[in-house]
Amino acid sequence: MPRFDSAGLVTAVAVEHATGALLMLAHMDAEAIARTRETGFAHFHSRSRGRLWMKGETSGHVLKVIEIRVDCDQDALELRVEAAGPACHTMAPSCFYRRITADGGLERIGG
Amino acid sequence: MPRFDSAGLVTAVAVEHATGALLMLAHMDAEAIARTRETGFAHFHSRSRGRLWMKGETSGHVLKVIEIRVDCDQDALELRVEAAGPACHTMAPSCFYRRITADGGLERIGG
Repeated sequence: MPRFDSAGLVTAVAVEHATGALLMLAHMDAEAIARTRETGFAHFHSRSRGRLWMKGETSGHVLKVIEIRVDCDQDALELRVEAAGPACHTMAPSCFYRRITADGGLERIGG
Repeated sequence: MPRFDSAGLVTAVAVEHATGALLMLAHMDAEAIARTRETGFAHFHSRSRGRLWMKGETSGHVLKVIEIRVDCDQDALELRVEAAGPACHTMAPSCFYRRITADGGLERIGG
């Protein structure tokens, strides 16, 4: 089992398995990890809503989990996934769709 | 500026710019972000040591930052980097060097 923080969570990063693209970052508790492993679809724990959710449960943009990787100190997970649609609720392919410019502003990028 | 948590931190994920490989996950406060942008090398805030640190300050395995991306709700950063050596203190290229097997064990992988 991973090393959960005081709130019982680990950080999880979803990466598109075929391309390596970073898609999104969320948090998992033991229940989210168990449901993800049982179903093969990414589940997270919503800190704002205080409950388990399956990514794509309303949008249909689920993440099929190919592999789960663990980092050296076991407090972060990498979910290697196939995405059924845009990973971001803004409909961008990835939540990381903006970069910081030299003057400190934000600029939209392709991915 | 990003949306810092109650401890003044955002989660930062370092990704190898050339390959997309997920290298490591750490935390940044406003100072770490400012130093990273000033120097072009990844700085983080160590929660255990309670201080700013530059990745590679002792090992020499620095991360040259090509681009900083921000996620949709601005509470996570993606550092697109060139790594001067193994990103992990274990000398693995990435901190995410193990996967969870079907029976719940851990297995070492290539990257």
